[in-house]
Amino acid sequence: MTDVIVTANSGSSSLKFALYPAEAGARKPLLRGEVTGIGSAPVLSARMGEHALVVTEPLNAIPADATHEWLITQLLQRLRGEYVMYRPVAVGHRIVHGGPTFEGPIRIDETVRRKLEDLVPLAPLHQPHNLAAVDAVSHIAPELPQVACFDTSFHHNQPRLAQLFALPRRLSDEGVIRYGFHGLSYEHIADVLPVYLGERANGRVIVAHLGNGASMCAMNGRRSVATTMGFTALDGLMMGRRCGSLDAGVVLHLIEQKGMAAADVHHMLYRESGLLGVSGVSNDMRVLEASSDPNAREAIDLFCYRAIREIGSLAAVLGGLDALVFTAGIGENSAGIRSRIAEGAKWLGAALDAEANKRGETAFHSNDSHVALLRIDTDEEGVIARSVAHALEQGGACA
Amino acid sequence: MTDVIVTANSGSSSLKFALYPAEAGARKPLLRGEVTGIGSAPVLSARMGEHALVVTEPLNAIPADATHEWLITQLLQRLRGEYVMYRPVAVGHRIVHGGPTFEGPIRIDETVRRKLEDLVPLAPLHQPHNLAAVDAVSHIAPELPQVACFDTSFHHNQPRLAQLFALPRRLSDEGVIRYGFHGLSYEHIADVLPVYLGERANGRVIVAHLGNGASMCAMNGRRSVATTMGFTALDGLMMGRRCGSLDAGVVLHLIEQKGMAAADVHHMLYRESGLLGVSGVSNDMRVLEASSDPNAREAIDLFCYRAIREIGSLAAVLGGLDALVFTAGIGENSAGIRSRIAEGAKWLGAALDAEANKRGETAFHSNDSHVALLRIDTDEEGVIARSVAHALEQGGACA
Repeated sequence: MTDVIVTANSGSSSLKFALYPAEAGARKPLLRGEVTGIGSAPVLSARMGEHALVVTEPLNAIPADATHEWLITQLLQRLRGEYVMYRPVAVGHRIVHGGPTFEGPIRIDETVRRKLEDLVPLAPLHQPHNLAAVDAVSHIAPELPQVACFDTSFHHNQPRLAQLFALPRRLSDEGVIRYGFHGLSYEHIADVLPVYLGERANGRVIVAHLGNGASMCAMNGRRSVATTMGFTALDGLMMGRRCGSLDAGVVLHLIEQKGMAAADVHHMLYRESGLLGVSGVSNDMRVLEASSDPNAREAIDLFCYRAIREIGSLAAVLGGLDALVFTAGIGENSAGIRSRIAEGAKWLGAALDAEANKRGETAFHSNDSHVALLRIDTDEEGVIARSVAHALEQGGACA
Repeated sequence: MTDVIVTANSGSSSLKFALYPAEAGARKPLLRGEVTGIGSAPVLSARMGEHALVVTEPLNAIPADATHEWLITQLLQRLRGEYVMYRPVAVGHRIVHGGPTFEGPIRIDETVRRKLEDLVPLAPLHQPHNLAAVDAVSHIAPELPQVACFDTSFHHNQPRLAQLFALPRRLSDEGVIRYGFHGLSYEHIADVLPVYLGERANGRVIVAHLGNGASMCAMNGRRSVATTMGFTALDGLMMGRRCGSLDAGVVLHLIEQKGMAAADVHHMLYRESGLLGVSGVSNDMRVLEASSDPNAREAIDLFCYRAIREIGSLAAVLGGLDALVFTAGIGENSAGIRSRIAEGAKWLGAALDAEANKRGETAFHSNDSHVALLRIDTDEEGVIARSVAHALEQGGACA
């Protein structure tokens, strides 16, 4: 029987999970899976180890109205009932918002659970799903230790100027600052970067996490010094459905002049904007890339334009650029987007090896490039599993 | 008797005016003046030609409740009654917002006046003062042609990607795009730049208009290709009282979670933020520079940090930088701020001549600098006057 750490990564319509051996530094999951389309048409895919596709019957027959809670409960029940060779010893959760309080992974007890609830207003779309998963585990397996791993932690020690908005000081003091997100993804990249770059990994690096949510992080010494996302996950890059950077005066205009309700503006900026809003076609980059609709093309153009602008802004913090790393769905899979953004970083010294990029190679800069161009798969689950293993080792110290 | 063009530049609490010879290309005003502190403690200062300070009695005795209308009426009455050697033949107004319609200066008739009124919601703090000045002139001197000169025109032909927000297309279509402002100031700089830079003026230039309102403009071929201000004059750089770039999610948070009224958020972002909000001391850079308060220092630090970030973002559009120009109140007068921002552009090839900068010389880069560093006085009134002269020459074509 193998002791395993279960990781749960709940998105607004997805749940990623994995089982890792419960030992410090374990890098390969024993099993990993994902349910997508929660709330509409849920689909499960799962892999044992690195290769074989597993389709576990009961999980495959997912009712259309399955919730995150239902799914995670199923998962734990299966582990107990059928996959008895795995014994869960802890569950690690991706938690979007750690607010000003949580600097790193923490064992979830009643006090922590309450504090996490208090942070819901800071990430109303994501935090409730994260906490639903926590509660489902508490319900079915109250004896299992649970650990919260935050998307904000990696940015926690950013320089103060990178965090401040130019708002009245009382607001900054009460926590209205830039937190930044996708921290588990950036932590993974920072972790593996020396494998690809050696000592240069500690130089001036920009990581572009381009998924349905998208952000960039400027790192120096593999620590976050600035990021494009702000107080919420709305700011910065254009995303699948989110607007990214927007003149705050537009929000006021929509409410004060156009008479929209704040809730409707909220919905529009989070759900109807970004690639979907500009294209009118889809929030999925693959669909847009395959489309001949000029509006789809314009959406892609704007996505790349905004990314190139943000690279400039982050390079200003770093004082130049040694490496540009692409990760997450679009970053890992779209050679076209990587190519266009890398071209837009030519003035910073980046030179593309177009063939290597098309082949999806990890390094795709040309020999004479002053900037390393890399494509690296992200692994938020791995970061969670290692944080949990570490927290278990630390024992009480983490609670 | 000299035919003169009167220029009126109404800010929220100030009115700048000037008299120019009514001839195309006139660069020197016969008289220029400014009333500041309108609504609180109004003060007039005026200069005849380039040197002598004039204190015209009736204008000097300004009642505390004097409005823009009252002041401009006084000005025209004095011209008629006392300064009869000047005969006004037209009035040119700085108008903040030209919306999607107005590409350049235009003679104000009833139709235009109505359209300008329609644009008030796009610039609620500034446009009403501009229009009050127009109406005052119409009332006292209905025979005088009036010309609207827009702060948005210079940016009108920016590339579409620079103008688009990643919002649903119907909003972009109805005019919710980035307009950019301070266009009259940028037009002046673009106009005189060849005097200082020769052919290089047509290269990659960033102009930093740093006043109580502040923005930057990236120019290529002396045309605007991107700017930091957006749909409203709230976006981009940190300003005296305005927040500049802000996560739109913060606005929603303040309204939805903190229960603030939109009007209160509006007031806070436009009037209580920026240098004032962060320092808690003043919105005036001179006061902050003289202060030993650590919060004043932090406000200055953030002002420079944000400026340096925006330079990076604009340099990305230009693909590098040939010249960085400072103008407007802070840009012209604070050697300290120029120095810190120029230092932050070192990575782009800028090298400062610290002594030349302190002496306030026009060019203050060192001999080995790859980027020209310039300090140029702006002259919005001159641009207005020349636009009016041009419009008068064109006659009906402009109306």
